Amino acid sequence: MAARFYAPLASEPGQIVALPDEEARHLARVRRLGVGAEVQVFDGRGGEWRARVESAGARGVQVRLVEAVAPVPEPRVAVTLALALLKGDRMDDALRDAVMLGVAAVRPFGAARSAVPLGSAVARAAGGRWQRVAVAAAKQSGRAVVPVVHPPVPIGEILAEAGGARLLLVEPAVPGPARRVADLAAEPPPPVATLAVGPEGGWTTGELDAARALGWQLVRLGARTLRADAVPLVALTALLAAWQEL
Amino acid sequence: MAARFYAPLASEPGQIVALPDEEARHLARVRRLGVGAEVQVFDGRGGEWRARVESAGARGVQVRLVEAVAPVPEPRVAVTLALALLKGDRMDDALRDAVMLGVAAVRPFGAARSAVPLGSAVARAAGGRWQRVAVAAAKQSGRAVVPVVHPPVPIGEILAEAGGARLLLVEPAVPGPARRVADLAAEPPPPVATLAVGPEGGWTTGELDAARALGWQLVRLGARTLRADAVPLVALTALLAAWQEL
Repeated sequence: MAARFYAPLASEPGQIVALPDEEARHLARVRRLGVGAEVQVFDGRGGEWRARVESAGARGVQVRLVEAVAPVPEPRVAVTLALALLKGDRMDDALRDAVMLGVAAVRPFGAARSAVPLGSAVARAAGGRWQRVAVAAAKQSGRAVVPVVHPPVPIGEILAEAGGARLLLVEPAVPGPARRVADLAAEPPPPVATLAVGPEGGWTTGELDAARALGWQLVRLGARTLRADAVPLVALTALLAAWQEL
Repeated sequence: MAARFYAPLASEPGQIVALPDEEARHLARVRRLGVGAEVQVFDGRGGEWRARVESAGARGVQVRLVEAVAPVPEPRVAVTLALALLKGDRMDDALRDAVMLGVAAVRPFGAARSAVPLGSAVARAAGGRWQRVAVAAAKQSGRAVVPVVHPPVPIGEILAEAGGARLLLVEPAVPGPARRVADLAAEPPPPVATLAVGPEGGWTTGELDAARALGWQLVRLGARTLRADAVPLVALTALLAAWQEL
C-alpha cells in the first residue's frame, strides 16, 4: 500500500490540499517522497483518497486528491474509552492501542487513586501530545478516522455525562454483582457505549457507589488478575470481541 | 489476601514442604516474612493451600500446609499459545500476559521471518528463564496453575503436531478466506485449542500453504492493523472472550 498521510482539509477529488506541518515533514524528510509520488490520504473523519504529491518544498507539501477509495471499516459500535490517567509513556501506549483497536473517542480522567495529578495531565493534553499519538496510531492502523482525545476531567463528570451503554470495569476482588464482559455477547450490541477503566490502585467505594447510583453496569474480566498495563487493552479487546467487532 | 508462593511439592494438609530457592528468597528477603507467618501456596497444578511458615533460615524456607482452599477458576478451554519468537523482553512480556490471561501452555517457535534465531532461543529456554516468568505471572494473577513453556521448535513441528482446534492468526492483508476470531463464538468452545501467532514480518506463503494443507483454520482480528507487540495479547483475549472465558 502507498504511504498514508493525514490531510484534515481533504474533501473531494481534484482538490489540492496542504498537509499539516508534521505530516509534510514525515512525507518529505522521513519517507523522502517528492513531486509526483503516489500516496494515500485520509481526512480523520472517515474519508480516504488516492493522491499525488503536487509540490514539496520549504513552504510545505501539497497533494492533489485523485479519487476516493474505500476506507478500512470502522466498528459498528462507537466505543468511547474512559481511561484513568496513566504516567507518561504508559498513557501514550494505552491511547495508541485503543485507537488501533478502533475506539471512537478517548476520555482521560482523574480519580481518587490516580497516579497522575489531573492538573499536569490537563497541561499535557493542551499541548496536543495525545491528539498527535491518535493521528499516528490511525496512520499505522489503516483507519481513516482519528478519534478525539478529550481533555482530562474528574471521574465525576464522566459518570454523570456519558451516554449510551455505560460499563465500568471492576477487578475480580470487588465485592457485589458484576457482569462478565463476555456475557454482553448475549444481547444485541448498542450503537454507542462508554467503557470506563479505573486507576491501577482501584476505584474507591464512593466512586463505585456513584457509578451504581447513576445506572452504570459493573463488568469484570474473568477471575484472573491482569498486569495493570495490560488491563485497558484487554478490556477493550474483550468488549469488541463480545460485540463481534474482531 | 496473604502473600502467595509456588510450592511444587505441596500435596496434602499437615504436610511440611520446602519452597524452591527463588520462592524462599522472595518470602524471607523481599516480603520479610518469618516463622509463624500465614501465607498461601500453590502447587502449579491447580492446588492451593493456606499455609504457615515453619522454618526460615540459611537452609531455606519450609511451610506447613494448613488447609486446601478453592483455587481461582481456570478457563474451561485449554488454550496453547504457539508464539513466534520475539526479542528478549518482548518475549517475556508476551509470556507473562498470556499466563495471566489463562493459557494452558506456551509453545514458542521459529518461523522463516522470525526476528530471533531458533538456536539462541533454545539456549534461553534451557536456562529456565521463561519458566520463571511463567511462575511469577501465575503468582501475580492468582492462578494455581503454572503453564508449561515448551522449548522452542521450528514452526513445522507445531503445524504437524498440535491437537484440538487449530487456529492460525493472519493479518488483515493476507488474501483468501479466513474467519474472524469473534465468529468462533457461534460454535460450542472446544475442550482443547492451539492459537498460532506468527512473526512480526508475517507468515510466508509456504507456511500458510502448509497450515491449510494440515487442516488449520485461518483467523483474523478485524480490519485494522495492530501494533506488533499488542497482537499476541489481543488475539488471545479475543479468543477467550469469544469462548466466554472473560
